Amino acid sequence: MSQVKKQARLPSKTKDSKSPDRELVRVQDLTPEKADQLIWLRARVHTSRAKGKQCFLVLRQQQFNVQALVAVGDRASKQMVKFAANITKESIVDVEAIVRKVEQKIESCSQQDVELHVERIFVISQAEPRLPLQLEDAVRPDGEGEEEGRATVNQDTRLDNRVIDLRTTTSQAVFRLQSGVCQLFRDTLTKKGFVEIQTPKIISAASEGGANVFTVSYFKTSAFLAQSPQLYKQMCICADFDKVFCVGPVFRAEDSNTHRHLTEFVGLDIEMAFNYHYHEVIDSITDTMVQIFKGLRDNFQTEIQTVNKQFPSEPFKFLEPTLRLEYTEAVAMLREAGVEMGDEDDLSTPNEKLLGRLVKEKYDTDFYVLDKYPLAVRPFYTMPDPSNPKYSNSYDMFMRGEEILSGAQRVHDAQLLTERAIHHQIDLEKIKAYIDSFRYGAPPHGGGGIGLERVCMLYLGLHNVRQTSMFPRDPKRLTP
Amino acid sequence: MSQVKKQARLPSKTKDSKSPDRELVRVQDLTPEKADQLIWLRARVHTSRAKGKQCFLVLRQQQFNVQALVAVGDRASKQMVKFAANITKESIVDVEAIVRKVEQKIESCSQQDVELHVERIFVISQAEPRLPLQLEDAVRPDGEGEEEGRATVNQDTRLDNRVIDLRTTTSQAVFRLQSGVCQLFRDTLTKKGFVEIQTPKIISAASEGGANVFTVSYFKTSAFLAQSPQLYKQMCICADFDKVFCVGPVFRAEDSNTHRHLTEFVGLDIEMAFNYHYHEVIDSITDTMVQIFKGLRDNFQTEIQTVNKQFPSEPFKFLEPTLRLEYTEAVAMLREAGVEMGDEDDLSTPNEKLLGRLVKEKYDTDFYVLDKYPLAVRPFYTMPDPSNPKYSNSYDMFMRGEEILSGAQRVHDAQLLTERAIHHQIDLEKIKAYIDSFRYGAPPHGGGGIGLERVCMLYLGLHNVRQTSMFPRDPKRLTP
Repeated sequence: MSQVKKQARLPSKTKDSKSPDRELVRVQDLTPEKADQLIWLRARVHTSRAKGKQCFLVLRQQQFNVQALVAVGDRASKQMVKFAANITKESIVDVEAIVRKVEQKIESCSQQDVELHVERIFVISQAEPRLPLQLEDAVRPDGEGEEEGRATVNQDTRLDNRVIDLRTTTSQAVFRLQSGVCQLFRDTLTKKGFVEIQTPKIISAASEGGANVFTVSYFKTSAFLAQSPQLYKQMCICADFDKVFCVGPVFRAEDSNTHRHLTEFVGLDIEMAFNYHYHEVIDSITDTMVQIFKGLRDNFQTEIQTVNKQFPSEPFKFLEPTLRLEYTEAVAMLREAGVEMGDEDDLSTPNEKLLGRLVKEKYDTDFYVLDKYPLAVRPFYTMPDPSNPKYSNSYDMFMRGEEILSGAQRVHDAQLLTERAIHHQIDLEKIKAYIDSFRYGAPPHGGGGIGLERVCMLYLGLHNVRQTSMFPRDPKRLTP
Repeated sequence: MSQVKKQARLPSKTKDSKSPDRELVRVQDLTPEKADQLIWLRARVHTSRAKGKQCFLVLRQQQFNVQALVAVGDRASKQMVKFAANITKESIVDVEAIVRKVEQKIESCSQQDVELHVERIFVISQAEPRLPLQLEDAVRPDGEGEEEGRATVNQDTRLDNRVIDLRTTTSQAVFRLQSGVCQLFRDTLTKKGFVEIQTPKIISAASEGGANVFTVSYFKTSAFLAQSPQLYKQMCICADFDKVFCVGPVFRAEDSNTHRHLTEFVGLDIEMAFNYHYHEVIDSITDTMVQIFKGLRDNFQTEIQTVNKQFPSEPFKFLEPTLRLEYTEAVAMLREAGVEMGDEDDLSTPNEKLLGRLVKEKYDTDFYVLDKYPLAVRPFYTMPDPSNPKYSNSYDMFMRGEEILSGAQRVHDAQLLTERAIHHQIDLEKIKAYIDSFRYGAPPHGGGGIGLERVCMLYLGLHNVRQTSMFPRDPKRLTP
């Protein structure tokens, strides 16, 4: 017993006796203030160039890098220079070095005013000598350096070797910004009194008729992967949570091989009860988007600039309050531009793009709401417009002419919902649980679902949603 | 064109002309300061009792409720009293009423000092007359009122009618607290410099040998649902994100019908590079848990008390810093208590529970870390203890004697990882992408995965994880 007692401990800092008593500095903190200090650093070998009795290394941590010199002299032997020169690129090393100010700025590094004079160097993790792609190539803007025969990296090579591709300054910036979008989304909604919910992804019935849904083997039966958390969000509204949001994967078994479709993406979902008009919902969502845009503009400028270096684009423009157009107005604008379409036709993707350009010209905004879609082109649970039954209380939101959100006021009356389902020839038995949710008092409500990867892609002016999905899934890609 | 221009608008507040210009007050704001004011309110009819020329309603919003009186007089007719008396329970109504101070506190309502004298009442959404369960029954503590023949509601009835069950004060408190756990988890880690990542749930290979994994039909091939985001978290570490977390669903095709197993639950996952010792990882995780416990204690006391009323439990105790015991010490404590087990045997669930009681007696904590598990009982990617190859740099964390986290230092060397996989007889072909991730320089790292529902269940002293999952999934339940 005393033996046990003696061994039990409440460690204030679990510094093991074997841990060296060192502080590792961050590359970004290597500034002239640290000049002449002896420091320890852990970093990757970004590049390495041996030249006689010297070896120049560039050491990298994420988007920051610094030049390091190993030179034959008092503290470094010829063998050590040779050892350093042989360390493979992308290996992780610990170095002990003196920080020295430099007379001429080192243009190729983020830390331009200092370099490191290395006294000791250890390899923590050795990279294999042949890298499947070169980081310099992976950040090169398309077309740049072509005359010198310099390569860029194609998308499949990037995605096949995502662990290396994600190390580039561009990827680091993209996914730090993506993390910011999620945080801004949640923080804004939490301040507005929304509650975060967790909804199941394995579901028993494909509510929207069973198209484009993945099937899962579930013990002795089968189930489906949720195409959206909508039904569960709505149940939470019927369960008095009033305003809810959730962030999670949604699954679409759509065989679409386009720049903007994924089979699995992250949905930022909102649902809320409203008092008198579904525009209360639109206002909440557009304000949330505006808070995200402002937060990115104000707090992620470094990341935006970094991405722009490789993928130039115009700064993202938005209005306050957000522009809201009605569907009939959009049709009129398109017709004026020469498009032939019926009043109740859905927008094709090219027409959405064209409309985005027309709206940009006219209103100078990259973000707007298109309201009052024809009822015929929306799902059965969409609330018809009470003043014109050909239209509906539904809306899409667009960034740079591409849809990022689809939403609507939902039918909250079990009787009307049943009628609408019958009209859409949906098997009532399959959606019984859904319809029953509205039988015990349901407030008027609406919401929408935002595609995280699309928001990031379009905000940054990128051209493929795979650039803003860490490990994208499409009909042809399941790995890594 | 002018037509289009005229219709386009930038609404500052999209108040439709049809929206009444009313402000709805919240039930929780109905206090004596509002006495004699005429107000509008939207709420559910919680209970209704007609008595001669009067009808007493209790109107509810989430956990708050207020008494309302409809009485024949100047503003209300006999017909109106009858109309009010016939409104079904759980219907949503709008009322216009005068707030009146009451002389005797209304003990049965959250708003004890006022009642409403109703002048107008409208039904916004009518509930069906027969409710599948009664809210009063659903919040009754087990055993209470049994002699009067009062019912409680069994778990399947609750879950089958979750939309109603979630309206109870207990459910509202549980899931608001759960929302708080997620927020505290993310906020703490964001402050520590962690980046949020999104990992795919559809994966091409079942990395841990293929047991307990759900299969998905994926176009012309098949895929699996991720049992944890671990491999992707690790890839992010290899991709220089340094410290990452994610919150998302994890899937276990385990045919376990216990109080603590779900087939789909929410994982709060952490992974980080460390400098010298994996205890840096343990310290980060335990500190995060402590911040969660403190945040709940300080900001969710109302919710905790509400749940305690129905499900009494001892307050959750924790130490700062967190208690860390080694596996050998735990085995010694168990043996001292009469348990027979070998040094390298895994802990059975009853022994975990017993150990929790022994630790509570000795150290007065409901939360602790068990460190240095026998290597033989951990997955192949677990780093062996360099000083004793029978043990490993791995740990579990426990709340009230039940496991809530499993974690470890991971093998970050491709060669060693290959050897460990062979030792575990794992098909190397299937984990090639995983092993290859470590070939291009990988920092030492570790992490762990926390089960959100278990944390909420055990923090609140509940006894079934289905109580802390909004729409639980187990081998026998796929709906709602």
